[in-house]
Amino acid sequence: MFRLILPREHGFFDLFRDISNLICEATREFQLLLAEGTASAEVHSKKIKDLEHQGDNITHQTMTALHKTFITPIDREDIHELIKRLDDILDFLDAAAQRFVLYKVGEAPDDMRKMAEINNASAELVKQAVSGLSNLKASEQMMKHCVEINRLENEADTVLRGAVAKLFSDEADIRKLIKLKEIYELLETVSDRCEDVANVIESIVIEYS
Amino acid sequence: MFRLILPREHGFFDLFRDISNLICEATREFQLLLAEGTASAEVHSKKIKDLEHQGDNITHQTMTALHKTFITPIDREDIHELIKRLDDILDFLDAAAQRFVLYKVGEAPDDMRKMAEINNASAELVKQAVSGLSNLKASEQMMKHCVEINRLENEADTVLRGAVAKLFSDEADIRKLIKLKEIYELLETVSDRCEDVANVIESIVIEYS
Amino acid sequence: MFRLILPREHGFFDLFRDISNLICEATREFQLLLAEGTASAEVHSKKIKDLEHQGDNITHQTMTALHKTFITPIDREDIHELIKRLDDILDFLDAAAQRFVLYKVGEAPDDMRKMAEINNASAELVKQAVSGLSNLKASEQMMKHCVEINRLENEADTVLRGAVAKLFSDEADIRKLIKLKEIYELLETVSDRCEDVANVIESIVIEYS
Repeated sequence: MFRLILPREHGFFDLFRDISNLICEATREFQLLLAEGTASAEVHSKKIKDLEHQGDNITHQTMTALHKTFITPIDREDIHELIKRLDDILDFLDAAAQRFVLYKVGEAPDDMRKMAEINNASAELVKQAVSGLSNLKASEQMMKHCVEINRLENEADTVLRGAVAKLFSDEADIRKLIKLKEIYELLETVSDRCEDVANVIESIVIEYS
Repeated sequence: MFRLILPREHGFFDLFRDISNLICEATREFQLLLAEGTASAEVHSKKIKDLEHQGDNITHQTMTALHKTFITPIDREDIHELIKRLDDILDFLDAAAQRFVLYKVGEAPDDMRKMAEINNASAELVKQAVSGLSNLKASEQMMKHCVEINRLENEADTVLRGAVAKLFSDEADIRKLIKLKEIYELLETVSDRCEDVANVIESIVIEYS
Repeated sequence: MFRLILPREHGFFDLFRDISNLICEATREFQLLLAEGTASAEVHSKKIKDLEHQGDNITHQTMTALHKTFITPIDREDIHELIKRLDDILDFLDAAAQRFVLYKVGEAPDDMRKMAEINNASAELVKQAVSGLSNLKASEQMMKHCVEINRLENEADTVLRGAVAKLFSDEADIRKLIKLKEIYELLETVSDRCEDVANVIESIVIEYS
């Protein structure tokens, strides 16, 4: 019987909150990685890798709990989709950070800092929207966060396209062009995954309100 | 009670039909974008962006309806998968169109026109297959459309591989090679998503016939 | 009534086992493709293409069976996820093989052979983990395989990152760099999909043990 119900003190909503905190921390680390230059880039990328591993653990716990829980507080498929997308955010941030170090990019272009900033703003909104899930009393506020996350995703997409077009016209070093293009695309995928999270949350709000 | 049932006049099948119409229109716009050259490329890419936004709205309506509907005419997960894949088709077409303009490709290579033609043919078949879902009386015809969509996906894949191999051997400008390769891959993903739609429809036909 | 139950002699577990065998065979073919050089590369890539087609058939049979079966031995969504991911493994192996031939890569770099070896090891573990699903008696052994598949995925990722960094610093031919980078990434995706399979299996073991 005990197996059917998650312990009150750490249910699905706590797991979502925990992983959202990791995501916020990782986006801040990524901003530091870009700001502080080569010397400390490796330190920050290791921190992000560590946060990504912690995220994997939470995802694993969530999936285990999902398979052990008979009655879930929200739809099973929504829980599954949410945790997958939240975990994706960390994976793509980590992929971008590792490549930044490995490719020895050095000085980050302004557009990349801009995207890192957008990702951090999205992460904070994801955290707030996720924290509302447990009681759904602030549903109007949650919906506003989701709309804003969507707007930020469009902004990230615009920055990406402009940055890549600029690379093609201005960057003489074709190797550097390929490296930076890849990192930009990974960062844009981060904001795509934030949008996916927002879409799941919106659906849940609609269903339960 | 009223919330449980979708209004007759605009249920899931209508939403699928609406988005299929947008897809057909977008594939035709993309053909025009390639045919008419730089001057009007921007006009067509803006039209495709607009169709993509309309598609987002329909997807959003579908997800909302899914969360508000207790008993659905076909499996919930099939509805979810179908609308996601249909929406993907528009997203990838839009991504290809935006890049074509942004990268200032200019003259489209013949293989790209060929892929755009294949995508338009797939879109028309998707529309017909989708329109059969509401009564499933023409299931044999629907299955034929799905087989043909699969065949076209293989054809698109063959064109892609040949085109990219040709780029590697013939295209002297490495920037142009990278740009065109990316657009080809996006167009091939369009036909992949058409195939995904066909696979879901086939499953539904099998289940309900 | 007969439609509700899969014939004993070929149920879901047999389909999973069949496709796992194809995957093992395909990873071995890929190793041969890299080992034997240009002359026989085409032969092996055709064999892999053929295995990929057989995989499509099994996936199709599984989806059909899923839609015709009322009570499934494990969760429907787990069956769906498992077959999709198993099929993906073949698709990405095939994509890597086709590109190797089409791009006329010729001599495979050592890191690529290393990744092919890792993929073959993962495939063997996937086969063993999948074969345990039908009775779940060796669940501890299955869990060990899944942990090992995860470890191999990390190893593949490390090889990929090192190999691509090496390409950027050492490969003078930018076309060759782009070609090899793409093939490495496809091979890394193969090991990602093996990990996805392991994660689904772990969840099933947890649920039913």
